[in-house]
Amino acid sequence: MHKLMIVSRQQQAYEAMLADQPLPGITLTQQPDEATILLADPPKVAPRLEQFPALEWIQSTFAGIDALTPPHLRQDYTLTNIRDCFGQLISEYVLGLTIAHQRHFTTYQTQQHTNHWQPYPYHTIASQTMVILGTGSIGSHLARSAKALGLNIIGVNRSGQAQEPAFSAIVPLAKLHEALAQADVLVSTLPATSATDDLLNASSLSSCRHALLFNVGRGNAICETGLLHALESGAIEHAFLDVFKQEPLPNGHPFWPHPKITVTPHIAAESFPHQVMAIFRDNVQRWLKRQPLRYAINFQRGY
Amino acid sequence: MHKLMIVSRQQQAYEAMLADQPLPGITLTQQPDEATILLADPPKVAPRLEQFPALEWIQSTFAGIDALTPPHLRQDYTLTNIRDCFGQLISEYVLGLTIAHQRHFTTYQTQQHTNHWQPYPYHTIASQTMVILGTGSIGSHLARSAKALGLNIIGVNRSGQAQEPAFSAIVPLAKLHEALAQADVLVSTLPATSATDDLLNASSLSSCRHALLFNVGRGNAICETGLLHALESGAIEHAFLDVFKQEPLPNGHPFWPHPKITVTPHIAAESFPHQVMAIFRDNVQRWLKRQPLRYAINFQRGY
Repeated sequence: MHKLMIVSRQQQAYEAMLADQPLPGITLTQQPDEATILLADPPKVAPRLEQFPALEWIQSTFAGIDALTPPHLRQDYTLTNIRDCFGQLISEYVLGLTIAHQRHFTTYQTQQHTNHWQPYPYHTIASQTMVILGTGSIGSHLARSAKALGLNIIGVNRSGQAQEPAFSAIVPLAKLHEALAQADVLVSTLPATSATDDLLNASSLSSCRHALLFNVGRGNAICETGLLHALESGAIEHAFLDVFKQEPLPNGHPFWPHPKITVTPHIAAESFPHQVMAIFRDNVQRWLKRQPLRYAINFQRGY
Repeated sequence: MHKLMIVSRQQQAYEAMLADQPLPGITLTQQPDEATILLADPPKVAPRLEQFPALEWIQSTFAGIDALTPPHLRQDYTLTNIRDCFGQLISEYVLGLTIAHQRHFTTYQTQQHTNHWQPYPYHTIASQTMVILGTGSIGSHLARSAKALGLNIIGVNRSGQAQEPAFSAIVPLAKLHEALAQADVLVSTLPATSATDDLLNASSLSSCRHALLFNVGRGNAICETGLLHALESGAIEHAFLDVFKQEPLPNGHPFWPHPKITVTPHIAAESFPHQVMAIFRDNVQRWLKRQPLRYAINFQRGY
């Protein structure tokens, strides 16, 4: 019998779902030393990894598993994450904020307070070019959504190749600057790996021309001083940041009061417990049948 | 030789385009009594209609031509409007504001001012139902865009029939209340006709259940006191209004300070002069060849 322990901010929600519909072949435990399977938030379980001597498999409740991939942490277990449920939420975030910016929604909101009726010229987002860093599940979903609203989509990844037909072109990371020069909207969906650390820095961002920048991947991808420089030079017109090197973003950080930076508290995509549980249930069935799990992480690659 | 006079807020833009690329067979005039063709903003030309004794055709620079359709105005000329360039802009407006509302963008903006990091739960817009009143060019474009972002789309029109496959169902106006009961998002794209006057009133809106209401058609479709009642009862959760019975919305109007009403100054869609000119050029060629014009208005129907 496999023993499951839950280590999550959403503990109660998962326990309620399992009480309602148990997992055949699995019992819940509160004893770390007997747990063979963990359903866990990576930042919550990472400091406790040594407490689980019987550990065989962690199902992450997050897409981002970088809290578990540093080389000094044990990697003697199977790690799976969740995917395919974030593309829609990320698309809403990016498209909603892009439209809100280009169509002056905040200005009209301010004007409403003073009963002021004043239209402003604007441009449609159609025919603009969106450059998406990362062509995985999230990047591909965003590509499809944004293309449906009329944008031209360029993908950037390591190989320069991708399956998703919504990308009109795929540029290899080695030619990042060529892609950035074409971006009206630049979106990083990149995972946190050593290869993505400070990828968007003063040098690379200087290729941009008045682009809107979104970071919905991981905070490590943006060099903070490089971004401030690019905002000052106008290479970046406005930055919408949902992820940061340190979260919550510390009080007094220069991003908070910056008029060209929109800070959101890591809400671009959220793991809804029922979606996590659907993926977990499927993986449990595979685990019991000794089949390969969905969304397995390669510790070396970091995704 | 046909004589064209321009009567538009965008007069200079149109004159510059015609200087750059003249219309063969057409000369510009500043003399109302010799003008046979007008390229005109309806509200600007309506009070002057009697000054054009040689008038044969007005190409409206707006989609909305209701300023020219009251029965006391002359109707002894051909009236054409512009279409097909508004669907994209209306889609951006409706989808952008829907996402901004459901994803708490305004709240995060306010929190940023005080360096406050606090996420809030939310729902995706996917699988929500959007009910679109009017299944013409604008309503159909919106249906395609919203469906691409995962919404289920119901159309409402007079016949209960429509060609656009993005509508999962079409409900006849006679059964409006059945459609309204299903709406998470309700959008009026209706033209101003006697049949649409106060169509959305206290009685019809009482069928709604916490719907977001958009008016991007004409102000006549909404009974203002009925809307205030529906906001108070909760039948309508929030109203996004771009058009009004009187524009600009008068100072002191109860809509301005209402916390559940977003007022925008008639900017959901704009006639970009180059798009108007492209339609006008095509219609001029048809006019010179005595072919039927595109987008001709039936004065009796009002659209």
